[in-house]
Amino acid sequence: MHSDDAPGRELAWIAVDWGSSNLRAWAMDEQGQIINQAGSDKGMLALTPDAYEAELERLVSPWLPASGQFDVVVCGMAGARQGWREAAYLPVPSALHQLSQGAVAPRLEGTRLRVHLLPGLSQTRSAAQHFDVMRGEETQLAGLVAEKPDFSGLVCLPGTHAKWATLESGAVTRFTTYLTGELYQLLANQSVLKHSVGSDDLDEPACHDAFTRAVAEIHAAPQAFSSRLFGLRAQDLLDSRLPSCSARAAVLAARLSGLAIGLELSGACQGQPEEEPVTLIGNPALCRRYRVALEAIGCTATHLDGDSAVLAGLRLAHGALTHHGEVL
Amino acid sequence: MHSDDAPGRELAWIAVDWGSSNLRAWAMDEQGQIINQAGSDKGMLALTPDAYEAELERLVSPWLPASGQFDVVVCGMAGARQGWREAAYLPVPSALHQLSQGAVAPRLEGTRLRVHLLPGLSQTRSAAQHFDVMRGEETQLAGLVAEKPDFSGLVCLPGTHAKWATLESGAVTRFTTYLTGELYQLLANQSVLKHSVGSDDLDEPACHDAFTRAVAEIHAAPQAFSSRLFGLRAQDLLDSRLPSCSARAAVLAARLSGLAIGLELSGACQGQPEEEPVTLIGNPALCRRYRVALEAIGCTATHLDGDSAVLAGLRLAHGALTHHGEVL
Repeated sequence: MHSDDAPGRELAWIAVDWGSSNLRAWAMDEQGQIINQAGSDKGMLALTPDAYEAELERLVSPWLPASGQFDVVVCGMAGARQGWREAAYLPVPSALHQLSQGAVAPRLEGTRLRVHLLPGLSQTRSAAQHFDVMRGEETQLAGLVAEKPDFSGLVCLPGTHAKWATLESGAVTRFTTYLTGELYQLLANQSVLKHSVGSDDLDEPACHDAFTRAVAEIHAAPQAFSSRLFGLRAQDLLDSRLPSCSARAAVLAARLSGLAIGLELSGACQGQPEEEPVTLIGNPALCRRYRVALEAIGCTATHLDGDSAVLAGLRLAHGALTHHGEVL
Repeated sequence: MHSDDAPGRELAWIAVDWGSSNLRAWAMDEQGQIINQAGSDKGMLALTPDAYEAELERLVSPWLPASGQFDVVVCGMAGARQGWREAAYLPVPSALHQLSQGAVAPRLEGTRLRVHLLPGLSQTRSAAQHFDVMRGEETQLAGLVAEKPDFSGLVCLPGTHAKWATLESGAVTRFTTYLTGELYQLLANQSVLKHSVGSDDLDEPACHDAFTRAVAEIHAAPQAFSSRLFGLRAQDLLDSRLPSCSARAAVLAARLSGLAIGLELSGACQGQPEEEPVTLIGNPALCRRYRVALEAIGCTATHLDGDSAVLAGLRLAHGALTHHGEVL
C-alpha cells in the first residue's frame, strides 16, 4: 500500500464522468476530497468497447500506489449500449440515492481497478406521455439530492439536449429533454440564418434586450416559432434600425437564442409556480443565460455548479456501493 | 419575322421562373399557350450578375425567329439584390394584378430580348407585427388572382420556406414564412435524429397514422415541439411496439414531418374558420401532405398546381406590361 505522510491524502477511489466527446477523472481520498484530476478527449464516440480499459489505465495509473484494489465509479455514456458495457436504464420514478443499484461491471483484463458503470434513466409513454432517456445528468441530479436528500422541485440541466426533471422527495418522477442547444447550432450554422447570425454577448444591452424579448415572445406564442426563425432573416434584410455588421449579427444571434430557449421554457415551465425557483445545474455562463430567460417570463432560479453536482453524485453512489455492498 | 403556317403558334413572348437553384423558361404564343419549354440548373446561387444574359440567350435563342424583339417576363430570385438586378420589394398591402409596376430591366448587351424582372413582396413590423419577404411566390399568388380577380382567403405555398398569405379582394394584406422544410431537412439529416429517421410514405397506414397524430399533437401543444423532437430519438431506443428497420425509420420520419408541419399549422391556421378551405399552391405530392395535415386538425383544402399558377401569374404580368405600357 502506498503510504503518505499526510493522512487523508491517500487515494481511496476514483470518480469518472465519461461523456460522448470527453472524459474526466478525479482521484478521491477517504473523505471524498479531490487529490488529483485528469481528462482526455476519448469520449464514447472515439472508443470501441475494448479500448475503454486502456484509456482509463493510462489516465489513472500515475495515481495508483504499489498495491491494492480501487473502486472506479463512472457515470455517463460509457454505460450506454454503444459504450463500454451497457448499464440498462432505470425506469422512473427512480430514487436518486439508489442509482448504484443499477451499476454494472465491465469485463477487465488483470487490472487493480473495480469499475462500476452507473445507469441512466428512462421514461416510457405510460409513465409520462412521452418517451425519454438521460445518461449522465441523473448523476448530477443525485448530487443535488446528496446535499438535500428530500429535495422536491423542478430542475433544469441546460445543454445540447437540455433536461428538465421533476423531483419529489429525492426521486425523479418524470423528465423531458429539449433539443434546444442542437436546434440553435443547426439553425445558426447550417440554415439560411447563417448569413444573419454571429455570436452574441448578453452583457451588451442590445443583445440582452433582443434575447429577453424573444424569450417572452415565444413563451407567449410558441406556435410562432418557425415563422419567427424566417422573420429573423427578413429582419436582417429589411430592418433599418438594426446596427450594422458584427453588432447586427450579435443582436440577431441573441434573438435566435431567445427564440430557442423561449420555446423550451414555454413547454417546461407550464404550471410552475412563480414563487418556486427552478434549480439550474450546469456551467455558470449557460446557467446565467437560462436565469435571464426565466426572469424574462417571471420565474426565478437558483444555480448549482455542474462539476460540483456530478462529483457529489458520484460520491453518493460510491458511498452506497461501499456501505451497502450491492456490487462489491 | 419568323413565319409559321400554324397561326397562333408563333413566339410572342417568353415566361421565366428563375429561382435560387434552377430556372425554367417557356416560349409563349399570342394566346398565352406554351409552344416550347427549357430549363437548367443555373439558378441564382450558380450565377454572377453578368452571367444571366448569356444563360438566358443559351436557353431561348433556338426559339427566336430571324428578327424582332421579344418580352421576357421573369419572376423569382433573378430579381434579388444578389441576383441579376434588384427589383425592390413591393410593400404589402399589394394588389397582385399590379406586380408588373415594380418590374425592372437589367442592362443588356445587344440582345433582342426585353427582360422584365418582377419584384417580390415585403412586410415590415408596422404592417403585421413581423418582418417578412417573398420572391417568386407572389407570382404564383398572382396566378390565383388571374383566375379569380376578387379572391379573398388564406393561401399556403408549401416548401423549404413555406409561405402563408392572406388575400383580400385580390391583394396580399399580410403573409408569414415558416421555415418548415428547412427545419425538417436539418433535423432529419444533420441532428441526433438522423440515426432514427428514414424516408416516409403516407400511403403506408402506419406512416399516415404517425403523421396525422403528430400534426394533431403539436397543433394542440406547440410548446412541446423541441421536446417531442428528442422524444422521437428516445422512442426509437425504447418503444418495443415500433416495427423494425426501414419500416421503423419510415414511421419516425412521418412523425418528424408531422411535428414540423403541425407546428406550422398551429401558427398559420389560428382563427381560420373550419368551413373556409385553405388554398394550397405547389407540387401535388407536397400539397397532398399538407391537405392530410389540414384535415387532421379539422380544416379543408383546395389545390392549385404550382406550375400552372406561376405561368398564369407571368401571363397576367405580361398582359399588364403590354396593355398598359408601363415599361415598354
